[in-house]
Amino acid sequence: MRARAGAPGYIRRMLNHQVRLAARPVGLPKRNDWSFTEEPVGEPPEGGFVVKTLMLSLDPAMRGWMNEGRSYIPPVGIGEVMRAGGVGVVIASKSPAFPIGTHVSAGLGVQEYRVFTSGKGVERIELSIAPLEKWLNALGMPGMTAYFGLLDVGQPKPGETVVVSGAAGAVGQTVGQVAKLKGCRVVGIAGGAAKCDFVVKELGFDACIDYRAGEVREGLKQHCPSGVDVYFDNVGGEILDTVLTRLNKKARVVICGAISQYNSTTAVKGPANYLSLLVNRARMEGIVVFDYADRYPEGIAQLAAWMKEGKFVSREDVVDGLEHFPEALLKLFSGENFGKLVLRVAS
Amino acid sequence: MRARAGAPGYIRRMLNHQVRLAARPVGLPKRNDWSFTEEPVGEPPEGGFVVKTLMLSLDPAMRGWMNEGRSYIPPVGIGEVMRAGGVGVVIASKSPAFPIGTHVSAGLGVQEYRVFTSGKGVERIELSIAPLEKWLNALGMPGMTAYFGLLDVGQPKPGETVVVSGAAGAVGQTVGQVAKLKGCRVVGIAGGAAKCDFVVKELGFDACIDYRAGEVREGLKQHCPSGVDVYFDNVGGEILDTVLTRLNKKARVVICGAISQYNSTTAVKGPANYLSLLVNRARMEGIVVFDYADRYPEGIAQLAAWMKEGKFVSREDVVDGLEHFPEALLKLFSGENFGKLVLRVAS
Repeated sequence: MRARAGAPGYIRRMLNHQVRLAARPVGLPKRNDWSFTEEPVGEPPEGGFVVKTLMLSLDPAMRGWMNEGRSYIPPVGIGEVMRAGGVGVVIASKSPAFPIGTHVSAGLGVQEYRVFTSGKGVERIELSIAPLEKWLNALGMPGMTAYFGLLDVGQPKPGETVVVSGAAGAVGQTVGQVAKLKGCRVVGIAGGAAKCDFVVKELGFDACIDYRAGEVREGLKQHCPSGVDVYFDNVGGEILDTVLTRLNKKARVVICGAISQYNSTTAVKGPANYLSLLVNRARMEGIVVFDYADRYPEGIAQLAAWMKEGKFVSREDVVDGLEHFPEALLKLFSGENFGKLVLRVAS
Repeated sequence: MRARAGAPGYIRRMLNHQVRLAARPVGLPKRNDWSFTEEPVGEPPEGGFVVKTLMLSLDPAMRGWMNEGRSYIPPVGIGEVMRAGGVGVVIASKSPAFPIGTHVSAGLGVQEYRVFTSGKGVERIELSIAPLEKWLNALGMPGMTAYFGLLDVGQPKPGETVVVSGAAGAVGQTVGQVAKLKGCRVVGIAGGAAKCDFVVKELGFDACIDYRAGEVREGLKQHCPSGVDVYFDNVGGEILDTVLTRLNKKARVVICGAISQYNSTTAVKGPANYLSLLVNRARMEGIVVFDYADRYPEGIAQLAAWMKEGKFVSREDVVDGLEHFPEALLKLFSGENFGKLVLRVAS
C-alpha cells in the first residue's frame, strides 16, 4: 500500500537530471544557452504522482518558447526547466486516478522525472492502441495539429489539390496522408531526394518537390496543374511566397509554423506575394492545436483506426539520451531529422 | 420615334474624346503614359444604346489594371481606352430596356461616350434614391466593397473593435460607418489632421489615428485598449504590419487593397508580422467586390436607407474635366483626395 500511495524514500531522494534554459539564444540555440542541473525528485502531495520520462517530443515550436515576448503561451523563463511534451510512466502515486504503471502524455519538461500535484493537463495513453512514440507523433500534438489544421482550417474537398511543406516532418506526414484519405491530390515539399522518396513511396503522396534542388516554382507548375486549393505551411519564407503565386480562387493557406524563420537574427521575411489573397479571394489562417483539446479523442480515434487498417504510416526519428537534447533539437532546423523527432530518455 | 430608336446623325458623327493607356507606367503614372484621342461616337446596333458619361469613378485599383500580368481581371491593353466605372445617361437607343434619359452605372471607360451593344453589365440607377455621385461611392463599387467586405469577410460582432485604414477614403468611410451601425468600436487610420477630424466629427468614428504624425503604434495602444478584432486594410505596407501586432485571438484581417504598394518599383513589402495570424489563430482574407454582384441590391437598399435616415454620410471629392484625368488619378496616391474621388465629365 505504501508503494502505491506515495513515493518510497529511494524515489524521493533519487536524482532528477534536468536541462534548463540558461540564456535566450540569438539565432540557433548553442550549448551555452542550456544548463544541466540535478535535484532530488521529491515527494508527490496528496492527489499527486511522479512520472518518469520515457520519451520527449522535440518540436520547432520550442524555438519560439525560448524567445522573450508575447506568443500563444508565455516564454520559458531563464533558469527554468525547458518546456517539452512527453510520454512517461507513473512510478509513485497518491492519486487513485493515476496508479503506478499508468502511461501518460503530459508537459514533462526536459528532465527525467516530474512531480505532478494533480492530474490537470495529464492524459492517459494506451499502449494497446499504438506504441509509445506514436503518442508523440500521429496520436500526439503533431498529429492533432495536422488533423484539425487540415480539416478544420484547410477544409479540403475531394478532388482539390493540397500542398504541404515540411512534408516528411511530424505534422507534414500526417497532413498529406489525411488529405489523400480525403480524396485530394497531394503534393509535398521537402528537403532532399531521400525525404522526397519517402514522402511519395512510403506515405503515398502524389508527388514531392525537393526545395534543396531549387525547383519549387517549376515543381508546383508541374505537379499542381490545376493550381493549389489548400497550402499547409510549416516553413514560411521563400517557399510560402512561391506557393502564394499558385493559389486558386478561394484557396486556404493554413499557417502552422515558419521553421525557416525561427532562428532568423534579422526581421522575419513577410510574404511579399500576400496580395495573391486579394486577387484570389483566398484566406490565410493560423492554427494552434490547443484550441482543439476537446476534440483530441476524435482525432486520435480516427488516426489510430487508419493506422490499424494499414492506411496510415507514422514515422519517427528517435535520438537517445537526455544529455543529447541540445544537439538533437538542432536537427530540426538543419532538416536532418527524418520523421517526427523524439528524444528517448529512458526505456 | 427615330430619336428614341437610334442615334440621330449628329450624335453618330459627334466626337468622343478619350483617354487611352499609351505605356505601362513605372511607379506613378506620368502624363506620357496616356494618349488623348478622339473618334466619332458611332451608331448603336439593334438592341444597343449610347451612354453619355457624366461622372467617372477614380479608384486605386486602376493602378493595378495598368500593369501587365494576371490579376482578378485582365490588364488594360496598350492603346485601349482606360477602363473606368462611371455613371451616365442614355442619349440614343435601339433598346426598349434602356430608353433615352435612363441613368445608368457601367464600365464606361475614360471617355465621353460609349456605345453599348446590349444591356449586359449596365445597371439602371435611380436619382430619386440618391444623387449621381453617391452611385459611384456608397451606392457604387466602393460602398459594395466596404459593405460586403466588412460584413461577410470581417464578420464584426457588436462590442468588437474594428480598425480601418484609408478611413477618409471611399471604402474606408463606409466600412467605419457600417461598423458603428453594427455596434462596434471603430478606429480609423488616415493621413493628416483634417482627414482625422472629418472621420471622427462627420463620420462618427470613435477615434482616428494620423499616420502622417507617425503615431500608429501608440495610437492603436491608446484607442484599441481591448485589441483589434477586425482590421480592414486598404493600404498594406507598414500600417498593415503594425496593426498585425495588435490582433486579438480569432481576429479577421480583410485585405481590400494595398495603396501604399501599388506604385512601388521595388518588390512589394510583405507583412513581416504575419505570424501574428498563427499566434492569434487569426485570419487574413481577400475581398473582390465582383463576387457579390448578385447581392448589390441588398447592399444598396441598406445603405440608401441609412442615408435617408440621416445615419450615414457619403463624401465625394469631385474634380472637373476629362482632360484632367491623369492629374486627378494621382491625388489618390498622394492622399490628397478627401472622400471618394470622382471625375465630372459632363453635367
